[in-house]
Amino acid sequence: MSQTGFHGVFPYLVSPVDAAGRVKDAVLARLADDLIGAGVHGLTPLGSTGEFAYLNRAQRHRIVEVVVQAARRRVPVVAGVAATTIADAVEQVKAYDALGVDGILGILEAYFPITEDGVVSYFTAMANATTLPVVLYTNPQFQRSDLTLPAIERLAGIDNIRYLKDASSDTGRLLSIINAVGDRIRVFSASAHIPACVMLIGGVGWMAGPACVVPRQSVQLYDLCRAGKWDGAMQLQRRLWRMNRIFAKYNLAACIKGGLELQGYAVGAPLPPQTALSEAGRAEIRSVLADLGALATTREVM
Amino acid sequence: MSQTGFHGVFPYLVSPVDAAGRVKDAVLARLADDLIGAGVHGLTPLGSTGEFAYLNRAQRHRIVEVVVQAARRRVPVVAGVAATTIADAVEQVKAYDALGVDGILGILEAYFPITEDGVVSYFTAMANATTLPVVLYTNPQFQRSDLTLPAIERLAGIDNIRYLKDASSDTGRLLSIINAVGDRIRVFSASAHIPACVMLIGGVGWMAGPACVVPRQSVQLYDLCRAGKWDGAMQLQRRLWRMNRIFAKYNLAACIKGGLELQGYAVGAPLPPQTALSEAGRAEIRSVLADLGALATTREVM
Amino acid sequence: MSQTGFHGVFPYLVSPVDAAGRVKDAVLARLADDLIGAGVHGLTPLGSTGEFAYLNRAQRHRIVEVVVQAARRRVPVVAGVAATTIADAVEQVKAYDALGVDGILGILEAYFPITEDGVVSYFTAMANATTLPVVLYTNPQFQRSDLTLPAIERLAGIDNIRYLKDASSDTGRLLSIINAVGDRIRVFSASAHIPACVMLIGGVGWMAGPACVVPRQSVQLYDLCRAGKWDGAMQLQRRLWRMNRIFAKYNLAACIKGGLELQGYAVGAPLPPQTALSEAGRAEIRSVLADLGALATTREVM
Amino acid sequence: MSQTGFHGVFPYLVSPVDAAGRVKDAVLARLADDLIGAGVHGLTPLGSTGEFAYLNRAQRHRIVEVVVQAARRRVPVVAGVAATTIADAVEQVKAYDALGVDGILGILEAYFPITEDGVVSYFTAMANATTLPVVLYTNPQFQRSDLTLPAIERLAGIDNIRYLKDASSDTGRLLSIINAVGDRIRVFSASAHIPACVMLIGGVGWMAGPACVVPRQSVQLYDLCRAGKWDGAMQLQRRLWRMNRIFAKYNLAACIKGGLELQGYAVGAPLPPQTALSEAGRAEIRSVLADLGALATTREVM
Repeated sequence: MSQTGFHGVFPYLVSPVDAAGRVKDAVLARLADDLIGAGVHGLTPLGSTGEFAYLNRAQRHRIVEVVVQAARRRVPVVAGVAATTIADAVEQVKAYDALGVDGILGILEAYFPITEDGVVSYFTAMANATTLPVVLYTNPQFQRSDLTLPAIERLAGIDNIRYLKDASSDTGRLLSIINAVGDRIRVFSASAHIPACVMLIGGVGWMAGPACVVPRQSVQLYDLCRAGKWDGAMQLQRRLWRMNRIFAKYNLAACIKGGLELQGYAVGAPLPPQTALSEAGRAEIRSVLADLGALATTREVM
Repeated sequence: MSQTGFHGVFPYLVSPVDAAGRVKDAVLARLADDLIGAGVHGLTPLGSTGEFAYLNRAQRHRIVEVVVQAARRRVPVVAGVAATTIADAVEQVKAYDALGVDGILGILEAYFPITEDGVVSYFTAMANATTLPVVLYTNPQFQRSDLTLPAIERLAGIDNIRYLKDASSDTGRLLSIINAVGDRIRVFSASAHIPACVMLIGGVGWMAGPACVVPRQSVQLYDLCRAGKWDGAMQLQRRLWRMNRIFAKYNLAACIKGGLELQGYAVGAPLPPQTALSEAGRAEIRSVLADLGALATTREVM
Repeated sequence: MSQTGFHGVFPYLVSPVDAAGRVKDAVLARLADDLIGAGVHGLTPLGSTGEFAYLNRAQRHRIVEVVVQAARRRVPVVAGVAATTIADAVEQVKAYDALGVDGILGILEAYFPITEDGVVSYFTAMANATTLPVVLYTNPQFQRSDLTLPAIERLAGIDNIRYLKDASSDTGRLLSIINAVGDRIRVFSASAHIPACVMLIGGVGWMAGPACVVPRQSVQLYDLCRAGKWDGAMQLQRRLWRMNRIFAKYNLAACIKGGLELQGYAVGAPLPPQTALSEAGRAEIRSVLADLGALATTREVM
Repeated sequence: MSQTGFHGVFPYLVSPVDAAGRVKDAVLARLADDLIGAGVHGLTPLGSTGEFAYLNRAQRHRIVEVVVQAARRRVPVVAGVAATTIADAVEQVKAYDALGVDGILGILEAYFPITEDGVVSYFTAMANATTLPVVLYTNPQFQRSDLTLPAIERLAGIDNIRYLKDASSDTGRLLSIINAVGDRIRVFSASAHIPACVMLIGGVGWMAGPACVVPRQSVQLYDLCRAGKWDGAMQLQRRLWRMNRIFAKYNLAACIKGGLELQGYAVGAPLPPQTALSEAGRAEIRSVLADLGALATTREVM
């Protein structure tokens, strides 16, 4: 649980895109800047919340570029690379590396089932295409391939595969991974786990969409966990969890974008045919953000 | 069950791509030509077997172009359009329409769950982008969204949505669809159904990968069904089903590509990290093709 | 598709039980008698529709006894035996054999996952406990174990295991079974398959709850299929399928019991905490039964 | 997290039954006595590990009787009541109440899907049949019904429904339950969760099979958690988790019975057609028990 290397709160950034398909640079840059101001430890464009699955190559590239420039090396930027083929993954890795990111979040999309050898060859090729640290990302809820423990053990032998983010809701799986390869791979939580629990069992932080709308509270929770102040941590965790569960009821990107809109960031709705947050959803999120003091941060709409 | 409109056997074409990512035009054109020679009623590039999920925009475009040119209007070409966003789907529809295809096979890819309204808006936009007939395609086994009966009923109201291909293994679902919208939507089988059963209940044919390697036998089965010669149809169907089930054990693209290689088409392996057919798989497929007299068609390797 | 051995339409009988837990003998006997009068080829007490999972040993025993007596050897009675342990299964088989049943429908209930060896040993022990023919029954939708093709192939070697009823909705699975062991095992359809399709591919009939409320129409469909009159068969099948799909929307036992109540059989509701058919469900079933002419058979309520 | 009421480590007792179906009283009584000697806070016969799904009424009754007598009121005995019907559940509750148990672990078995109203009526009837405290038990992995949060909220209004044991692996679900009804319902962990995490978020202990073979280590972990010594707790938790995951690879009852056999308790194998632990499984469990110092407790085989 060292403080060197990636650690702490990495918001999964939303991807604001206008009706014509253009990335809304200014609002994205302002969001990145504000999150850094709120104390987050890193930024992750092109995670699930970032709708990587809905963006074309040019949009993805521009989003990474804007975030890297906005971050100005104050915190590390770990960009998501999702692909179905090795060729596409390697190309993206090289492109984002050239843009100046600090790490790669590796995601394997699949259509047909894929063998363990196929999974290992994909992430190995991705890691070999860069000297940057790679975070393995698995989300069995939304992705059609999964990282089994044997595959993770094989990948842990690659020098620059150094982190893992698991978005299953099975926290015991994380402890099994830490037991098996915890000396070589550090584990990040996702919004489907209780971050305080993941910190307790040896995690180093979390990469998650909700941190976009409650960055200060997230950092505070991280600090309490790091300090071993578990009673205080749980008090805060309980309140934040309420929000998490509301988010889980709706399309995640629609929720985070909806919450940011309420906070004055004109990030828009998720890309069609995804639909914007319903009125009921907006009301629920407004209420929980108000309870958490997370509407008070509102600034003027751009 | 009229003979006007799309009907009969539409092989799902494989997508031969070399190690540098270039489409292997000649082998694809020869395959298309030979299939037409064997009597198939249409060609479908960019279905599941066509690895649409593994190809970039340029590769997809070239494949459709090659197939349209090879077909020389002898049979209709129905090209697969798969996307997560409406914008991308519409763009592909227009591009393939301009290339001269005769119909669009519409596929919705999803990451987050999608509402029925979202599903309907996606296929509606696709249909509105062209005057060509649209085939709805749903494959609940591999895709993260599904076409429910209420969604299909709404989509049946769009003029040029005229066909559906269902790749579930639930044949009763097809009869429910025919009962509900059979006057407006014609149903194609997939390799997960028994084609003879789908013909019996009112289907108009099948779109499937295995027809690439047994085109003549597939056409013969179709003719027997059309003629109401059910005993003969079932005799042939039982033998073909054996092959289908072997294919179901392996990655479908790997199987069809492997079978075509055995028949002398240098289509190569599926795109990495998918893996080529194993030796055991090759042996099994060689044996079943030999039984069906489908190796006798072998010509020289290109 | 021989006419010797079990074949044709076997209604899955409901289990009428009063509030005190007593089997309602008279209504059950009258239903059995009327079904035989309507031409069904056999009777199956204690299938899924018979709520075997909700009845204690004494209730099960009484139900089998009443049905055997009502049948008076006019048609075969095939009684369901469901258990989690071999000991319990063997005891039930012997008890029903002593009551004079003509066959056993074998069902394996499970809590923990069970190995193929465990599955095979269970059905083997059941078959060895009697000289009666055994029907293997698998319903992957509701049961926690399934009969794989390799397990079925092993069980086909047991002399008195002679039939299989599969309640998956995957009709292709039935053809694979027929291809593999069709010379030793005859296949019955369930209400999740389209009976006409199962007849086409070589099935010998169906065991299903809906036949309780539409026995004459079911027998007519069977006769059309047997005579190879597929056009007429499909015309009738389409109308019956509409009913099947309504039934699939609700608890199956509640539906069949509700339909029988509408026809004048006071069979009551399914056992609590299962709930009776809703008013909406009753209305839907009344309408479809009227369309099929299946309310015209109504007699006075007992 | 009060120490009044049920709390701490409740081993899920195995059910030793001989080949003739007789409960092995002596070995069960000795195991119960030894566990109390090791410091466990309660005993739970007839949980999942106790193979409730494989035992008939007489066997279940005898097991509860033996455990109550062996406990001699030193620790509370909470007996599992599993049924598909309300009538059966109520009968069991009354019978075990009469035998002198201290609480009821309520389990709903289902075959057909069950509505929320049905679920609520089942557990309500069970609670109304006794004045003893009731523990709701849900295990979505093995049971065909689940307790949703809305159902739990309704059941929390019943006076003597006071605890819940959740055997999903989704620890966040537990925090949602605690957030919603934590003032009225106390939460126990199961072996699918990390007990230390459940203690952190406000749980009061765990009910689990593995505690049968590592009772002292389990109590030590509980004490460390209660004392807020989280570093020490996690050190121990990591070692215990390794064991948990080995158990998860095999049939749970087979594992715990196998482990107890290694410790000198002649509890036998799970009931057929379940199979005994394989040689490989025995070796793995022997090794992990040795590592944990849990073979050193071995006494002579009875």
